[in-house]
Amino acid sequence: MLIRVINPNTTASMTALIEASARAVAGPGVVVEGITPAMGPASIESHYDEALAVPGLLAEVAAGERAGADGYVIACFGDPGLDAAREIAAGPVVGIAEAAMHAATLLGRGFSVVTTLSRTTGRALDLAHRYAPAGACKGVWACDIPVLRLEHDPAVLPRVVELARTALARDGSDVIVLGCAGMATLCADVSAALGVPVVDGVAAATVLVQSLVTLGLRTSKRDEYASPPAKAYTGLLAEFSRH
Amino acid sequence: MLIRVINPNTTASMTALIEASARAVAGPGVVVEGITPAMGPASIESHYDEALAVPGLLAEVAAGERAGADGYVIACFGDPGLDAAREIAAGPVVGIAEAAMHAATLLGRGFSVVTTLSRTTGRALDLAHRYAPAGACKGVWACDIPVLRLEHDPAVLPRVVELARTALARDGSDVIVLGCAGMATLCADVSAALGVPVVDGVAAATVLVQSLVTLGLRTSKRDEYASPPAKAYTGLLAEFSRH
Amino acid sequence: MLIRVINPNTTASMTALIEASARAVAGPGVVVEGITPAMGPASIESHYDEALAVPGLLAEVAAGERAGADGYVIACFGDPGLDAAREIAAGPVVGIAEAAMHAATLLGRGFSVVTTLSRTTGRALDLAHRYAPAGACKGVWACDIPVLRLEHDPAVLPRVVELARTALARDGSDVIVLGCAGMATLCADVSAALGVPVVDGVAAATVLVQSLVTLGLRTSKRDEYASPPAKAYTGLLAEFSRH
Amino acid sequence: MLIRVINPNTTASMTALIEASARAVAGPGVVVEGITPAMGPASIESHYDEALAVPGLLAEVAAGERAGADGYVIACFGDPGLDAAREIAAGPVVGIAEAAMHAATLLGRGFSVVTTLSRTTGRALDLAHRYAPAGACKGVWACDIPVLRLEHDPAVLPRVVELARTALARDGSDVIVLGCAGMATLCADVSAALGVPVVDGVAAATVLVQSLVTLGLRTSKRDEYASPPAKAYTGLLAEFSRH
Amino acid sequence: MLIRVINPNTTASMTALIEASARAVAGPGVVVEGITPAMGPASIESHYDEALAVPGLLAEVAAGERAGADGYVIACFGDPGLDAAREIAAGPVVGIAEAAMHAATLLGRGFSVVTTLSRTTGRALDLAHRYAPAGACKGVWACDIPVLRLEHDPAVLPRVVELARTALARDGSDVIVLGCAGMATLCADVSAALGVPVVDGVAAATVLVQSLVTLGLRTSKRDEYASPPAKAYTGLLAEFSRH
Amino acid sequence: MLIRVINPNTTASMTALIEASARAVAGPGVVVEGITPAMGPASIESHYDEALAVPGLLAEVAAGERAGADGYVIACFGDPGLDAAREIAAGPVVGIAEAAMHAATLLGRGFSVVTTLSRTTGRALDLAHRYAPAGACKGVWACDIPVLRLEHDPAVLPRVVELARTALARDGSDVIVLGCAGMATLCADVSAALGVPVVDGVAAATVLVQSLVTLGLRTSKRDEYASPPAKAYTGLLAEFSRH
Repeated sequence: MLIRVINPNTTASMTALIEASARAVAGPGVVVEGITPAMGPASIESHYDEALAVPGLLAEVAAGERAGADGYVIACFGDPGLDAAREIAAGPVVGIAEAAMHAATLLGRGFSVVTTLSRTTGRALDLAHRYAPAGACKGVWACDIPVLRLEHDPAVLPRVVELARTALARDGSDVIVLGCAGMATLCADVSAALGVPVVDGVAAATVLVQSLVTLGLRTSKRDEYASPPAKAYTGLLAEFSRH
Repeated sequence: MLIRVINPNTTASMTALIEASARAVAGPGVVVEGITPAMGPASIESHYDEALAVPGLLAEVAAGERAGADGYVIACFGDPGLDAAREIAAGPVVGIAEAAMHAATLLGRGFSVVTTLSRTTGRALDLAHRYAPAGACKGVWACDIPVLRLEHDPAVLPRVVELARTALARDGSDVIVLGCAGMATLCADVSAALGVPVVDGVAAATVLVQSLVTLGLRTSKRDEYASPPAKAYTGLLAEFSRH
Repeated sequence: MLIRVINPNTTASMTALIEASARAVAGPGVVVEGITPAMGPASIESHYDEALAVPGLLAEVAAGERAGADGYVIACFGDPGLDAAREIAAGPVVGIAEAAMHAATLLGRGFSVVTTLSRTTGRALDLAHRYAPAGACKGVWACDIPVLRLEHDPAVLPRVVELARTALARDGSDVIVLGCAGMATLCADVSAALGVPVVDGVAAATVLVQSLVTLGLRTSKRDEYASPPAKAYTGLLAEFSRH
Repeated sequence: MLIRVINPNTTASMTALIEASARAVAGPGVVVEGITPAMGPASIESHYDEALAVPGLLAEVAAGERAGADGYVIACFGDPGLDAAREIAAGPVVGIAEAAMHAATLLGRGFSVVTTLSRTTGRALDLAHRYAPAGACKGVWACDIPVLRLEHDPAVLPRVVELARTALARDGSDVIVLGCAGMATLCADVSAALGVPVVDGVAAATVLVQSLVTLGLRTSKRDEYASPPAKAYTGLLAEFSRH
Repeated sequence: MLIRVINPNTTASMTALIEASARAVAGPGVVVEGITPAMGPASIESHYDEALAVPGLLAEVAAGERAGADGYVIACFGDPGLDAAREIAAGPVVGIAEAAMHAATLLGRGFSVVTTLSRTTGRALDLAHRYAPAGACKGVWACDIPVLRLEHDPAVLPRVVELARTALARDGSDVIVLGCAGMATLCADVSAALGVPVVDGVAAATVLVQSLVTLGLRTSKRDEYASPPAKAYTGLLAEFSRH
Repeated sequence: MLIRVINPNTTASMTALIEASARAVAGPGVVVEGITPAMGPASIESHYDEALAVPGLLAEVAAGERAGADGYVIACFGDPGLDAAREIAAGPVVGIAEAAMHAATLLGRGFSVVTTLSRTTGRALDLAHRYAPAGACKGVWACDIPVLRLEHDPAVLPRVVELARTALARDGSDVIVLGCAGMATLCADVSAALGVPVVDGVAAATVLVQSLVTLGLRTSKRDEYASPPAKAYTGLLAEFSRH
């Protein structure tokens, strides 16, 4: 089984970290490929970045189809391009916000999300509405650390632990969801510090895609997610034409 | 890894069928035990049956804890006793309605449930509210076949296919969820007949529990799902006392 | 008119208190019977306790049917077994959380619930979703006093008053609902201290059942709440078989 | 105990019918006064009628306060003036839509409303949102018979029965709510014809107000429903000034 | 184009202020008439006041119809009589709460309302539910300044700025809605002080009505908002009869 | 005042039609520029098309900022790129689905959307959830005519009229929203045929942007919609870097 874990930003070191998180939980016989797109933003910290990450991501899904991939993980907590990717992929596609929120709702009464910049909390709330039952997401908290500083800065872990502790108390939640692919390495430490389940979406999405492939389940091609109609594209994006 | 798949009713032939469905998707190294409780109803077709299936189910979860089980599946579409089981189990517990609805929301815009008796559709709607994002469950349809007839009767498959076809058209859904553990064997045939994903909760719950164990995730013991306070029980149920 | 007020736990002194609260508001010609089940937990403080209180409760509803009871009150704020009881009773069945929340919504903009243990607040929120219009329940607050200490401890009243005062201010609510049958005796004092309506579910449910009987209204037997299908039960629960 | 049942329209024969329905269910010692306002519309069949029924209704509540009334029923299914009446009355005030929907949710999974003109169905839906938990009101159906024809026309009963039957089947509901005070006399016949509970709001509201008075519960005077600030009124409405 | 901006209270100085706000934004060729009703309350600070403001308002809409008005603004933040006014007007009718909330949702993630008396916050929340998408209104805050003091008191501006600042921080909102027609003159100053958009409903409603007239759009006369049926009115309100 | 009306697809004849609709309603002194992007899909009929229309759209917003545009209309019913456009524009940005749904809720109880391909109805429902109060959108109906056939085919008008008539009856709605920029020219004819308001989003959005500019209101730059952080972009999209 081949699973493509696509990092929608173009920072290769972050892809390496994501790939490692995914491989750590993949079952025997599952090949995990971490992918860095050939175009797009160095990190995703705005609606603008997110929108412009999608072409590079879709190019990698299309390449995955040619390479026989069985399923895909979109490894950015905004789940950019998820609907479009489902249209062009034969196998299942799962976003890491989606997977993390699904897992979280199986583990307690309600979860809090700890994410990076406060400007992205609106998007996280929209995704919680889309993925989680009403009331399951109790709050979204921003640590105000830029995405690309997550890897290096030793101040990140204590800051995230402290914020998560506050979230649990104020929200009355009992599970923490990490709101950025770049936080994957913090998962075990935050959980140990707080004594509650902490969900990393990269790992959660990897096992979820693997599970769907095992079950023989793939995106319904009835109507909305059917393969997109053939269409001419012009200009810079001409290569995205579908015949 | 040891996963206990508990059939909350007391019909052993149905347990055998459930166990086979679970084993068919479990990963290498996963031991699946199908369990029939020592007390309770022969099948679950009312709130009364469901309520009275819970003591037998909880006794089997308690036994599983003593036997070192890593996780549990509750294999009845009403997910009886799920909250109580989460309190007394150390590892994850997943209901088949929960697992099926989770999987379904990853596969399309919205799902329809095809279940047994119309008197149970209210319960299915309650569970959809609990597990699925608003609007994901587009409808619940009853084939009006009693649970224990599902195994034997050759008329079941065409009836379920026809009902599912109607559900897709009327609800505008694109995924079918089978609303009874006893329908597990129909899954592939219904999917082939309709050309849409069809989700069997027994298989879906088994891989979901396995995934959570792989991720090291278990029910939060912060507050609501902490181990229940010690308590004296009297009468017929004295054996359920906790010390 | 005969109304059975069933205390779902097995503590007779609490039943006596509940019966007194019910009798204090029942109309002329209404006979109120307080009932302690023959099996189950000494108090209900977890999902586990609540699930295992149901068999004893249902046995008492069945006994009530044989004795010609006109209606039933389930006198625990989790309303355990309500759906199953409605299936087997001919007359109306009302839970005390249900009755209290109904009354509260007639008296102001929104209510706060003051309950016992924080682990039960999730259940109270679920019930508010089930019974009350969206937004009516503004919050649930736990005083962290075990159920069986409510009767004796002089510290209970000031603690409940203080918590209710905080709830009104923080939630912006204007009505208090007492979240435990064991708090019935506090009702008048809390109301006097705060100057807002305070609703005790035991009294509220008693007059509500009486009202439904007066109106000639009983549970609809169309579909979901029809008498459960005949069914064999085995093991410890064999006596719950229905023929 | 004195309960004022106010018919917000000015048709005295309809008040007589309403008063009889209320008296039929009131307890011993309860005095029920049916009231026809001194100003306003002959019947209420539009938002315009409803808005202009409110001054006459409020004048009768104010008169009731002077006469020592213990509680009030607003006997029109649009519950006109309910919030304002709660501000100026010391005792409880209940609308018949409110009471009927409350009762209906205690009797089954979901109710359908059968009302008069289709132009009023929007208002009924708004009230269902205000009073009932999400999903409880399954539909609103209009028989397109004007309010004042309900009393006389022998074609009304079969038309309402037929519409209610359709509503039960299409909505999947199990309880019927009659959506006009003028339908009170049909209640028993519709229920007998359909075999499901049928709720008349006039009777339901009367016992509900009586219950609240018995429980010693009245509208919270904390903030929103406190007595309105003193205010000068001019013109035609000068008599509504409050000092 | 003639737009009637009706102040539902009877204080002429407030009408003058409202008219000025409306004229400041009306396009070339648009005639704005500020109207003070001939009957009703001096200000609107309770449900009682609001209900009794409606007859005077409706009389002015009826007069506007005779005068050929193209559209109407209801210039009180409770939007009193909006549904009834839509029935009797041929052209569009917009309330200032409605217009302000509409504009606010186009400008950010979520808005907070800053209003006058805390007793009116419930009404504001009801209107937010009616007009705005779920979650758009993040909170309603009361400055506890009576309506008629808004015009004169120099303490009002700093109090409103401070309250709005608190609302932005606590609610996590990014837009402020002024919750009273009497606050229209504060709009620019509050916005300058806080650096976020601040919406005054009077101006917003005026351009909105003008826009609808330009688009040729008017209230649908299919069913609910069709002209009300002819009806006899009696007593004080006899002049409201429709033939 | 300069308003850029951007057609997110690359078909210039459709831009011309959109520009004409916008100009027909713009006020005196408002310059409307219809814009065709330099890259992207010929029409938008899938999530894939929509995602890939965004870069071209954002390039035109960026160009508009340099040219001093006061506001923007996004003239495709999926409102692609709306959030990102709000981040990079100083003035207001409105989508045509957003504007049409806003207008529709001012005109009646509920609206139905008539759109092109059934695969896009899910997106329309998502937008209704985002823009409209709960329950306002009563249904979405697809005429199954591809976008680029709307201009030429004489069969389009009768098909849309028929579908809208069905929608009104089945949904119980009273307003129609046209769900594609390419339907703008049908608006008057459909309204004439059905006797209800029919809203074209292009015209509605144009007057709405104009209104916001008149009111001095622009997107809040507090947090979520602040200008995006500077960021390096690579590959094909390098020109989208922000410094």
